[in-house]
Amino acid sequence: MTKTENIEAQEKDLDHGESLLAKLALEAELADYSPVKGCMVIRPYGYAIWEQIQSSLDKMIKETGHENAYFPLLIPESFLKKEAEHVEGFAPECAVVTYGGGKELEEKLVIRPTSETIINHMFSKWIHSYRDLPLLLNQWANIVRWEMKTRLFLRTTEFLWQEGHTAHATFEEANEETIKMLGVYKTLSEEYLAVPVIDGIKTESQRFAGAVTTYCIEGLMKDGKALQMGTSHYLGQNFAKAFDTKFQDQNSQLQYVHQTSWGVSTRLIGAVIMTHNDEKGLKLPPKIAPIQIVIVPIYKEAHEKDLVLNKCKEILRNLKSDFRVKIDDREQYTPGWKFNHWEVKGVPIRLNLGPKDIANNVVEVVRRDTNQKIKSVPQDGLKQYLMNLSTEIQETLFTQAKEFLNRNTFTVINENEFSTKIPSGGFLVGFWCENSVCEEILKQKYKATIRCIPFKVPVDQMKEEGYCIVCNKTSKQNVVFAKAY
Amino acid sequence: MTKTENIEAQEKDLDHGESLLAKLALEAELADYSPVKGCMVIRPYGYAIWEQIQSSLDKMIKETGHENAYFPLLIPESFLKKEAEHVEGFAPECAVVTYGGGKELEEKLVIRPTSETIINHMFSKWIHSYRDLPLLLNQWANIVRWEMKTRLFLRTTEFLWQEGHTAHATFEEANEETIKMLGVYKTLSEEYLAVPVIDGIKTESQRFAGAVTTYCIEGLMKDGKALQMGTSHYLGQNFAKAFDTKFQDQNSQLQYVHQTSWGVSTRLIGAVIMTHNDEKGLKLPPKIAPIQIVIVPIYKEAHEKDLVLNKCKEILRNLKSDFRVKIDDREQYTPGWKFNHWEVKGVPIRLNLGPKDIANNVVEVVRRDTNQKIKSVPQDGLKQYLMNLSTEIQETLFTQAKEFLNRNTFTVINENEFSTKIPSGGFLVGFWCENSVCEEILKQKYKATIRCIPFKVPVDQMKEEGYCIVCNKTSKQNVVFAKAY
Repeated sequence: MTKTENIEAQEKDLDHGESLLAKLALEAELADYSPVKGCMVIRPYGYAIWEQIQSSLDKMIKETGHENAYFPLLIPESFLKKEAEHVEGFAPECAVVTYGGGKELEEKLVIRPTSETIINHMFSKWIHSYRDLPLLLNQWANIVRWEMKTRLFLRTTEFLWQEGHTAHATFEEANEETIKMLGVYKTLSEEYLAVPVIDGIKTESQRFAGAVTTYCIEGLMKDGKALQMGTSHYLGQNFAKAFDTKFQDQNSQLQYVHQTSWGVSTRLIGAVIMTHNDEKGLKLPPKIAPIQIVIVPIYKEAHEKDLVLNKCKEILRNLKSDFRVKIDDREQYTPGWKFNHWEVKGVPIRLNLGPKDIANNVVEVVRRDTNQKIKSVPQDGLKQYLMNLSTEIQETLFTQAKEFLNRNTFTVINENEFSTKIPSGGFLVGFWCENSVCEEILKQKYKATIRCIPFKVPVDQMKEEGYCIVCNKTSKQNVVFAKAY
Repeated sequence: MTKTENIEAQEKDLDHGESLLAKLALEAELADYSPVKGCMVIRPYGYAIWEQIQSSLDKMIKETGHENAYFPLLIPESFLKKEAEHVEGFAPECAVVTYGGGKELEEKLVIRPTSETIINHMFSKWIHSYRDLPLLLNQWANIVRWEMKTRLFLRTTEFLWQEGHTAHATFEEANEETIKMLGVYKTLSEEYLAVPVIDGIKTESQRFAGAVTTYCIEGLMKDGKALQMGTSHYLGQNFAKAFDTKFQDQNSQLQYVHQTSWGVSTRLIGAVIMTHNDEKGLKLPPKIAPIQIVIVPIYKEAHEKDLVLNKCKEILRNLKSDFRVKIDDREQYTPGWKFNHWEVKGVPIRLNLGPKDIANNVVEVVRRDTNQKIKSVPQDGLKQYLMNLSTEIQETLFTQAKEFLNRNTFTVINENEFSTKIPSGGFLVGFWCENSVCEEILKQKYKATIRCIPFKVPVDQMKEEGYCIVCNKTSKQNVVFAKAY
């Protein structure tokens, strides 16, 4: 069995970006290594970020008409085998249960690497008529995929996610759903996590095992690597045929349903860490920060203590209804220690409050996004001031990340340019002949992949036609290349 | 592998109470059988009840100072073996992963049957000083325990739960925590689920494997069987010693921590089903009902449709901020079909609205708890009326259940009385000599167990001393016996 020490040793092999991730995640106490190969422990502060992401996304999932449900963790091995591409893609990554209740099982069970198969089995029981459609479900669950090389949040053997599964009467409806949910993910990423993304379609080689089309959103991390942040799949009738999921249409004809599935995971926390940080630590976007404002009381003399603490409490009471706010009144730590502590943890706004501030009826406000100190903010109207500031911080973090993404998105016209630019990271935009051989060459030679065929080319004045950067064949297909996590 | 058909066949063996449970759960679409042995699918309406329970309980867990975290699903087999009683209790119930990523594992991993071991491993890493204590964590997770005889919600191989895990410097603090969290469970059960419980201490034979003391709340289901609804364990230093979880106290001495753990699960939904129902179906307490009010538009003529639907929408808009409310405007079903449908699902309040009601500016209100129809409730002040009614329904359901529990709680003074009363169910209160032999005799002969040593004897005028109902020895220990799920 792999020991904690082994996993920590593994981590030392990682390159700069990966060490940075580990440093930020460990120091901010978001997660810790576990004694189980490739699995991490999500610590309270990290889990609280996940709860914020969950509640924002859950609301959007419900507003788009989906209901939550829960399907079994364990899936009969034979189910996985029913869809040929699906088993090929997932069987090598499965954790397999062979014993239960002290006895060897007649049929092995795999821990869900994704739930299309078991959900289709149930769909085939529940769907009879066009009146039962669309069926729009979502589940929040844990997933196990046996990963060889793992890193905190970005790639772990077990992770938490949501997986939407829907069934529709027609291609049009299912396709619309697939794109709609990708849009929800884009909104979540850009408006909540403040992580800008490129949205588009995966090439065949990067497609979900069993899907007809995989749509994705791709972010660019601070170390120049791309991160697939969410995917939405049009599954066609592949699973419906494998599981005989049929309905009687309005003309009493039996038809296979058209399906979709879509998911995002705790990997999103990794995206936030690797997008919003500086040498001091994390910078959390206010919308998903577990603590949006921390108040640090500052006093030297014992007789000032009550005065300062009471004022802090008064401010807390005033802000509580609109912010996730806390006072750090621990006596064993100095204000300086606390400043550093909350900077590491990325709390968006800090209020420093001492006797002088109280005398002047002001407070000192420190922004984590720019590390700017704003002295003498009047206590009157403080709440409105902080609401505006919070919005500004959310926007600033997005703008900073967007500028980074733009600065690191380049056009490449041939393999020579590609080979020069790829080592320093970023999104490279160029033409591709649509042949998987050329795609594979780039993967082998440069460990780079086509992240997506973008909905909108992410550079200005791109020509409509050019030459495949590998084979030089004429092409009209612009794609986004990158090294990725 | 067991097929769905086998599981459904299993269900046919069950006695009346168990068939009732299945009937209610399936008809209300709370759950369905899955193709995986002993696992169920929680359908959207059932999962929505779980979400209500979760959000109420999560709030209470946080208000009592706990933070949520997430620990790995898979636990090294060697961890389970570190605490002798723990492994003895749980090993026979474990699902065991022997393959991962296509290879046989060096060490087997069990799917968590509970998480004391892996959490203690982490605690031993995180806890160094008395300053790190108390450590108060909770996790929402799925659990697998290989069950031979399963039934929907009440006993399933996989279930969802929360498990609290805390570490303290002293026995006193840990014991206080254990009892505090049992109190939270009692509040949840009585004030939210409207299920009255008896609280007390488990006997040694019923204690959690590895605990020093197990506290519990026990409900009485409509078929006369007891249901253990939640447990809270004082673990002493058992796991601390097994995992070397020590801290330096204020005198710089190394001490083992004192620990607690406590949990409730999706079994609570089973308790609601088996407490609140009648021949028509479920009766959900308003506080946890996913839909608290359903509005059914009633019209015969096409020209009335707009008038009625618009009024329904107006009422919905008015109620929306304070209730989980929906209009059932489906055209393919008659009002009568809808009445029945929402009664089966146990929606607490139904509003019937037709052209005559609109003309008179009234609405018809139907209570699910008493099935009472209240004609001509004025639309003016309707929201306040429904808020009061909702409170009344919540209380009525609790009172009904409390009266049922009282009516079915009997004193027994000897085995003869016990044997007469036990077949018809209920809580039997009698003296016990504190010898596990007598306890075992009752289990063997009557399939009855001691549910708990109650904090407060649940019958009036019980003597302080009596005779063990089995061996006749003098005893001061009153206990509660019952057949249980």
